[in-house]
Amino acid sequence: MYTIGLDFGTLSGRAVLVDTRAGEEIAESVFDYPHGVMDSQLPSGTKLPPDWALQHPQDYIDVLSHTVPAVLRQSGIAAADVVGIAIDFTASTPMPTTSDGTPLCYLPELVDEPHAYIKLWKHHAAQRQADLINATARQMGESWLPRYGGKISSEWFFSKLLQILQERPDIYAKIDRFVEAADWVIWQLTGTETRNTCTAGYKAMVQEGDFPSRAYFKALDPAFEQVVDEKVGRKFAELGDKAGELTPQLAALTGLRAGIAVAVANVDAHVTAPAVKATDPGIMVMVMGTSCCHILSGTQLQVVDGMCGVVKGGIIPGLYGYEAGQSAVGDIFGWYVDHAVPPAYHRAAADAKLNLHSFLEREAAQQAVGQHGLVALDWWNGNRSTLVDVDLTGLMLGMNLATRPPDIYRALIEATAYGTREIIDAFDAQGIPVNQLVAAGGLPEKNALLCQIFADVTGRPLKLAGSAQAPALGAAMHAAVAAGIYPDIHAAAEKMGKLKDQVVTPIAANQRQYDKLFAEYKTLYDYFGRGANDVMKRLKALKHDALSERQG
Amino acid sequence: MYTIGLDFGTLSGRAVLVDTRAGEEIAESVFDYPHGVMDSQLPSGTKLPPDWALQHPQDYIDVLSHTVPAVLRQSGIAAADVVGIAIDFTASTPMPTTSDGTPLCYLPELVDEPHAYIKLWKHHAAQRQADLINATARQMGESWLPRYGGKISSEWFFSKLLQILQERPDIYAKIDRFVEAADWVIWQLTGTETRNTCTAGYKAMVQEGDFPSRAYFKALDPAFEQVVDEKVGRKFAELGDKAGELTPQLAALTGLRAGIAVAVANVDAHVTAPAVKATDPGIMVMVMGTSCCHILSGTQLQVVDGMCGVVKGGIIPGLYGYEAGQSAVGDIFGWYVDHAVPPAYHRAAADAKLNLHSFLEREAAQQAVGQHGLVALDWWNGNRSTLVDVDLTGLMLGMNLATRPPDIYRALIEATAYGTREIIDAFDAQGIPVNQLVAAGGLPEKNALLCQIFADVTGRPLKLAGSAQAPALGAAMHAAVAAGIYPDIHAAAEKMGKLKDQVVTPIAANQRQYDKLFAEYKTLYDYFGRGANDVMKRLKALKHDALSERQG
Repeated sequence: MYTIGLDFGTLSGRAVLVDTRAGEEIAESVFDYPHGVMDSQLPSGTKLPPDWALQHPQDYIDVLSHTVPAVLRQSGIAAADVVGIAIDFTASTPMPTTSDGTPLCYLPELVDEPHAYIKLWKHHAAQRQADLINATARQMGESWLPRYGGKISSEWFFSKLLQILQERPDIYAKIDRFVEAADWVIWQLTGTETRNTCTAGYKAMVQEGDFPSRAYFKALDPAFEQVVDEKVGRKFAELGDKAGELTPQLAALTGLRAGIAVAVANVDAHVTAPAVKATDPGIMVMVMGTSCCHILSGTQLQVVDGMCGVVKGGIIPGLYGYEAGQSAVGDIFGWYVDHAVPPAYHRAAADAKLNLHSFLEREAAQQAVGQHGLVALDWWNGNRSTLVDVDLTGLMLGMNLATRPPDIYRALIEATAYGTREIIDAFDAQGIPVNQLVAAGGLPEKNALLCQIFADVTGRPLKLAGSAQAPALGAAMHAAVAAGIYPDIHAAAEKMGKLKDQVVTPIAANQRQYDKLFAEYKTLYDYFGRGANDVMKRLKALKHDALSERQG
Repeated sequence: MYTIGLDFGTLSGRAVLVDTRAGEEIAESVFDYPHGVMDSQLPSGTKLPPDWALQHPQDYIDVLSHTVPAVLRQSGIAAADVVGIAIDFTASTPMPTTSDGTPLCYLPELVDEPHAYIKLWKHHAAQRQADLINATARQMGESWLPRYGGKISSEWFFSKLLQILQERPDIYAKIDRFVEAADWVIWQLTGTETRNTCTAGYKAMVQEGDFPSRAYFKALDPAFEQVVDEKVGRKFAELGDKAGELTPQLAALTGLRAGIAVAVANVDAHVTAPAVKATDPGIMVMVMGTSCCHILSGTQLQVVDGMCGVVKGGIIPGLYGYEAGQSAVGDIFGWYVDHAVPPAYHRAAADAKLNLHSFLEREAAQQAVGQHGLVALDWWNGNRSTLVDVDLTGLMLGMNLATRPPDIYRALIEATAYGTREIIDAFDAQGIPVNQLVAAGGLPEKNALLCQIFADVTGRPLKLAGSAQAPALGAAMHAAVAAGIYPDIHAAAEKMGKLKDQVVTPIAANQRQYDKLFAEYKTLYDYFGRGANDVMKRLKALKHDALSERQG
């Protein structure tokens, strides 16, 4: 029997048809969103202010109607043998709808209103609202705030909804439901509105099954007092549960059989955990790409420095799901390769028929630990965990006239590994064990040196995801649970989850040297990150002054 | 009437024939040393150990016999109208000779002995001896030590002589005179042995007209007790004095008239001061190239943090001559351009028909102060003044994903300017005023942004040397004084010294911003340079361990 997992990303959606016996990925299809990310204008041509990022709901429906028939066709599997479907999504990517789930942007009178569209996770125009949310929570001593590293992001659910209220109360008044796109797609598939615990917990401040108090919302804005009851609702659906059954309309659209199980929606990073068999406590999944998302389950609730969130059942039902993150990983290597590598290395890489990353990796891999004499702070895009500070910036130290590109490339990889170790140490300090690492995403796949350095620096064995489409595979596993093929996600993960055979084991001699180097990183981390020397913030302020002077 | 100044550099010697009325440079000739820098083998093929750097005395004589006739020929000036000759030299570049000045390397039995040759300033194989010299001086509380920033270099006179004693006592025993090559060339020209106060003061620990005590030398090595009386001598010749008259042999060799005045020798950096009219207190001359040498005269003797030396009459007779330095300036920009600028900028520079330095300067010049958000420590080659610490390394801070090459290039220029300001502040703190800067050397000539940044950061007006051959011009001025055309170097400098008309004036708005940025530099300077966080030294130790492990 088969299930289909759908992974909705930033620019496209992907369907993977999976054999539920051993997780074999039978067929795969990708569809690019026709509207992509709308960050400069609406389809009508209406211009968008800076920092906006919207999406169009029709794109998600198009993914369903294109990719599902495609995987059926490619695989030759009969629709009758597909017993379930599930999705994962970016988050928080919420949208305003009417009471029957019609997106407000479909209403003729609102088609030209930016606030009627879906606010993509990277919509950053609600910073003022996020600041208010944080200041108010601190003032009122809200107990949930520490569970989000002390800071709610402008990317999250209520920041975006409050932005609508404060900027366009008239549109806010027309909203019956404000819903994550993830849950909206499930609503379309089943005809039933659900709210998955994962997005609700990590992005909408739901803790112990409830939102912050009405008094808190009122303090944000008197008109926001009843926001939960008026626009959201207080019922949540557990991951792995069946959200409903596929409606005849959507069956017709997708070519699937009406009535098959549709699972509760999930977030892309978090759904990766079962895909790599990480359903037990102590296994940290690192979803590595431009940034890195750390996903970990634990048996107890603890507040960990600068984590992004802790949510009961947020990853695996019954366990506390922890999320932490580094705001730049692959982005730093990309910056370096694009903006700081001289022509000779470009030529040498071409001669060796390698891309520049691989060439620098090969050169850097020849070095002994510590040989380059460098240490860096991996804050090119601020620091998410454990400092939760977007105003921090990068640092590199130890250069001399003999420093060469492979030295710097290696030092940058090491800096990101130190950043992960700092996160692991923060979990350790709260008694939440991290025994093993699993790396997923494109970056570890292509960079063996990076994997070895992460193992050496953290002192943990590291395994690699077995599927290049881990999120879609994870979704397909949730579909299998929802369809009753497996009793729970643990059982599904055991059979369908995939890891590469290879285990990257820490090399003891390297570990010893990296302990010394990490101690240096840690001293700099605390010095520049915890207030002893706020030079990075002051430089940012001077930069801001210089630029506004120039423009003014 | 005319004089000739000869500038003996690391790889070549240069003669400039100058009109003594207004300093007009009539003709110029360069001759490359046939033996260059001997750092791998002797002419016989005998291999040299690492860190050695020797020269051959015949090369200097060849400079005389080639360049002096050349400038006479080119200029059409009659030898009868050339009334004086003077030289400046690298230092400390000492050599062992017999009592009549014959280089030991000319003795057939020693021709294959490395220790019989000239030890060039950048011979670094006497570090063990320098360490002993420093430790002993500290132990004995020698009063002269603080006048050299608390540290005697392995490049200096007694480090090199002690190396011979300790490694080859048999050759040491054959030395009658150990003499700076500068003074040896004067000895060849005049037949008279002199010791110029400049090299003796800055490189041989001569203070108040005398060397360290016999007890001190004995403490270094019992056989070293009488080193001064046996090998050196205690008579010094003032700058600008006549060392003697040109001998008939050297007149024949050079085509000059026998009996003309030959001035006392001088060091290349220091002789630049009169060439740019800096004969009064308060004018800091910055000789900028790969590194930067700061030359300043003052009316009083003070110990200044990390200066290279203070010598009465070391630059201008009667004044205290101060020297300080930055161990890398142009070298840092060169490192950056060679090893960290991506192909797109190389192409854009070529399209703009500019070299990459000029292109980056042009781009960086468009920025407002502080706009790049960066700050760097200019320690790519350690820090000479004010910290006297070769184990310090470079640092850059403030990078984000939008940082681009002109940002970094500008930050590196600024870092070197901050380094100079730190030196100026150290002089200020001791009541030695610095009212004005003069930049000499190739770097400021080609980089207008650098000059403006140095003026803005230091808050001092900056003038530029008027001659590209300032050291040779300065030597020609000393020759004019020795020949009696001018009563003293002040008078010669007034007529013959040259500055460009342009004055680079600090821009008040920039100065205000740079005061803030310098405060950040200073905090980092003290934190990383004065023991609060010795991470740079520890990284260097780890690097050393890694490399020796690898080789071992």
